[in-house]
Amino acid sequence: MHSQQDFLRDAMHRLNLTRDRFADRLGIRRRALDTWLLPSDSSESRAMPDMVEKFVLEILRHAAQDGQGALAADSRAAQPLAERIAFEGKPQLLSVSQFDRDSLEALFQVADIMQPIARRQKVSRVLEGAVLGSLFFEASTRTRVSFGAAFCRLGGTVCDTTGFTFSSMAKGESIYDTSRVMSGYVDALVVRHPEQGSVTEFARATNIPVINAGDGPGEHPSQAILDLYTLQREFSRLGKLIDGTHVALVGDLKYGRTVHSLIRLLSLYQGLKFTLVAPSSLEMPSYLLELVARQGHVIEQTQSLETGLHGADVVYATRIQRERFNGESIEGYAPDFQVCKSLVDAVCKADTILMHPLPRDGRPGANDLSTDLNYDP
Amino acid sequence: MHSQQDFLRDAMHRLNLTRDRFADRLGIRRRALDTWLLPSDSSESRAMPDMVEKFVLEILRHAAQDGQGALAADSRAAQPLAERIAFEGKPQLLSVSQFDRDSLEALFQVADIMQPIARRQKVSRVLEGAVLGSLFFEASTRTRVSFGAAFCRLGGTVCDTTGFTFSSMAKGESIYDTSRVMSGYVDALVVRHPEQGSVTEFARATNIPVINAGDGPGEHPSQAILDLYTLQREFSRLGKLIDGTHVALVGDLKYGRTVHSLIRLLSLYQGLKFTLVAPSSLEMPSYLLELVARQGHVIEQTQSLETGLHGADVVYATRIQRERFNGESIEGYAPDFQVCKSLVDAVCKADTILMHPLPRDGRPGANDLSTDLNYDP
Amino acid sequence: MHSQQDFLRDAMHRLNLTRDRFADRLGIRRRALDTWLLPSDSSESRAMPDMVEKFVLEILRHAAQDGQGALAADSRAAQPLAERIAFEGKPQLLSVSQFDRDSLEALFQVADIMQPIARRQKVSRVLEGAVLGSLFFEASTRTRVSFGAAFCRLGGTVCDTTGFTFSSMAKGESIYDTSRVMSGYVDALVVRHPEQGSVTEFARATNIPVINAGDGPGEHPSQAILDLYTLQREFSRLGKLIDGTHVALVGDLKYGRTVHSLIRLLSLYQGLKFTLVAPSSLEMPSYLLELVARQGHVIEQTQSLETGLHGADVVYATRIQRERFNGESIEGYAPDFQVCKSLVDAVCKADTILMHPLPRDGRPGANDLSTDLNYDP
Repeated sequence: MHSQQDFLRDAMHRLNLTRDRFADRLGIRRRALDTWLLPSDSSESRAMPDMVEKFVLEILRHAAQDGQGALAADSRAAQPLAERIAFEGKPQLLSVSQFDRDSLEALFQVADIMQPIARRQKVSRVLEGAVLGSLFFEASTRTRVSFGAAFCRLGGTVCDTTGFTFSSMAKGESIYDTSRVMSGYVDALVVRHPEQGSVTEFARATNIPVINAGDGPGEHPSQAILDLYTLQREFSRLGKLIDGTHVALVGDLKYGRTVHSLIRLLSLYQGLKFTLVAPSSLEMPSYLLELVARQGHVIEQTQSLETGLHGADVVYATRIQRERFNGESIEGYAPDFQVCKSLVDAVCKADTILMHPLPRDGRPGANDLSTDLNYDP
Repeated sequence: MHSQQDFLRDAMHRLNLTRDRFADRLGIRRRALDTWLLPSDSSESRAMPDMVEKFVLEILRHAAQDGQGALAADSRAAQPLAERIAFEGKPQLLSVSQFDRDSLEALFQVADIMQPIARRQKVSRVLEGAVLGSLFFEASTRTRVSFGAAFCRLGGTVCDTTGFTFSSMAKGESIYDTSRVMSGYVDALVVRHPEQGSVTEFARATNIPVINAGDGPGEHPSQAILDLYTLQREFSRLGKLIDGTHVALVGDLKYGRTVHSLIRLLSLYQGLKFTLVAPSSLEMPSYLLELVARQGHVIEQTQSLETGLHGADVVYATRIQRERFNGESIEGYAPDFQVCKSLVDAVCKADTILMHPLPRDGRPGANDLSTDLNYDP
Repeated sequence: MHSQQDFLRDAMHRLNLTRDRFADRLGIRRRALDTWLLPSDSSESRAMPDMVEKFVLEILRHAAQDGQGALAADSRAAQPLAERIAFEGKPQLLSVSQFDRDSLEALFQVADIMQPIARRQKVSRVLEGAVLGSLFFEASTRTRVSFGAAFCRLGGTVCDTTGFTFSSMAKGESIYDTSRVMSGYVDALVVRHPEQGSVTEFARATNIPVINAGDGPGEHPSQAILDLYTLQREFSRLGKLIDGTHVALVGDLKYGRTVHSLIRLLSLYQGLKFTLVAPSSLEMPSYLLELVARQGHVIEQTQSLETGLHGADVVYATRIQRERFNGESIEGYAPDFQVCKSLVDAVCKADTILMHPLPRDGRPGANDLSTDLNYDP
């Protein structure tokens, strides 16, 4: 039931080929491939000949048999995805380190399949009767509401707890007790907590699914997975591969848990170049630098936005988490340390992708992604 | 499938006639009309002759053809209601100024049809799978819960965000960003915010439905629509018309957004008399006085409750919004400035309707609607 | 459709007999009874002879006719449970004093029937379309989420309001007004409020179901009912009866509303012995001591944990509600006043049941149930 576009994209993805190399492999011109990949309601869209479909299917079959192609292993994986990414044997998501490249790609395929539900083109009530416990001990709108809305969209319901004041933990209750009690009421937990490692403590006390929605400066796996998924879809549209790409990470790289999770996920791919742009007091922790370097990626550090953004395929900007170092002055983070339209126009390529996990400090003078980029595609 | 009662009420309503004038028009006695209008399970209810139904239908048909009667235009309106009241082309509700008299009456007809659902006599799951984002940056119980409960009642689910502290806006995020992000998760937004115009900013950033649940001293359209709907149903019961009625508005007319929205809606009708009763520092803003006067209504201002309430068909009392002017002393608002039973008995008519948008300050000595009126019908 | 195990347990329960006495009554060995009571998937489980079933059914029939057995009255009770426990004629739950022993046991039978739904072995949508208003004016996780999750599990939806700041009561609104308004929106209310008697005020203002989820130092009926239900199921497993048992209540017996509600419920049974272990400033209020004594139970008070726990069948420990007496020093509550593993091993029996309503102060040095008992069954 897939469209021609989906079929071709999936094939390029499984074979890990760019548009140019895929066109070469099929012996066709890149331009023909481009027209086949246009949305079917576009006036320039063309149907591909039946023979092309047969050829592609044969290539895929051989790739799977030979173990050729990055995702071939995936087709043979009889083990369910939930088990492959389990945390200590339980269906819990605490860190991006639970993923390898295959299981990550498998997750993205599930996400692809669920897109029509997210867009309300299809209805699913698969979570009918299920209750999600949402425990946010720290400020959040987007993460809390996105999990809540997703759970509701699939037919479930959500019980929210926000803040410490209104919870029993204000009465001195341990994470262990809170976790045990909540798991008696609900079917799954999404937890955000200001202390690194705390969500893992929640998870170890129970057997129900627990998702880490951010544990202080620790991890934020769902955000990183989402960012990589977005990146991959944009690259698929542009006919680019994540392998070998150049990513500039900008802003507070010391406390930004999103960047920490994202760089670990990107490191699962091959031959990337990272440019880290941060003031000296907010540099990426060295344990992460070593981890990334050990996997053979190139890392460059700079305090200059112009230098850092030059030639990047992806610019990932983040907010300075002021709440993490109240009072300290932020050296090296001058008012002109801002990703704005004039800078992007000057040093970036036409197809450079700009990303930001949000929230963004949109006030004048903030050292964050400038609002004059709002209408940039 | 409508009852005889609904049929007759709707006819009077469309022709904009009181019971007396409707009886005259049909050449019947008022008493006969009254018995036909009783609930069908009442022992004194009588069935109207078939001929009456035919006569009424003919009158309605001619009224529609001649453009006679306030609502005749409505019958010809091929355009859906949502489009007629759209805000900048989008299905959003930000101000009562989106309504004219016809579209307001059309909305009330929808409300009539939905009454059995609100009373749980009928079940509707029309919002199955839909998610409402409820963003309240200011204290609220009744507005928040009423929207939430209504959405749930129709099969949808709700994701709540209350207060600034627990939202990403505490991290400096702009209204634009918050609105864009939320519209990615939910299907509709209800927003309350302390600054006038802020909800319009939310609405302009997105294409999903946005409802203004109060923007500081600005507007509160849903409350005003509800108040007018209540008034109209009570008047229909009493055989009165809103045209030509006498409405006394009492309390904080300067900051009370509910009163601001209500007086604008009432001004869509003909020949009303408004008596505005407020201490000198809390008078109705002059731009509203001018707007109402331009539409040909009579306005009287007074600081005396006795004078102001005398002869009114409707007394609409409001709370002084202490949070809007902390510290300022409130001149001219003496402890006896209170709508209480003895005052109502002394100066109001037997069928005067008392209304209050709530919350009401029920503490002793508060300058608000007195609790000794709790058992007044 | 009940299993053999359910059938036998229910029979013992209705006849109010221990396993030993039930075996005697049937003329069988206790060991045979034990094997019939094992889960049917246990390798040592045995099917009981058909004749036993017939014998038991006959005993039950006679017991019902003779009015013999504690629950015989229940079988004859034609009146629905909701009416038998009504508060001032309305389906509201405000105090454990609404129960007698029969209605309490009848409620437990309903709970037994609903267990498979709570465990998600069966699905019920009995509350489809219904909306619960949850009003918590005081900190709560477990009570709020447990009611919310239960309501959702049965197909309903929940509108939460937590804290005073975000409610209209911060604007001076009375309990009366809040209750009237909320009952216009929702189908049932669960209310927690810091002032004793306040929830009753909520209930009196409306006809919809209202449940007291804790009114300051007043009552907490749902917690007490749940505790007793748990106790009864454990006793049923152990073949013990609540009549004649020995219960030690430990901790803050002055302000602990849970203990207040629980001791009143336990007093509905026969011949209990209560040992109350509390520092002198936190003793059980005298009105409760008198109420319990009047019903013929034995009460002992002590400040020594060793003395108090000795020989108890049940130890019910509670947290010291620090928030109730900020600043006061707590005399007689030394750091060694803690129920810990070494104490339990020294003075309790092998089958002593340890209970705690939670939350528990799990911080080192807290005078609460020690975390070294976490793995005690």
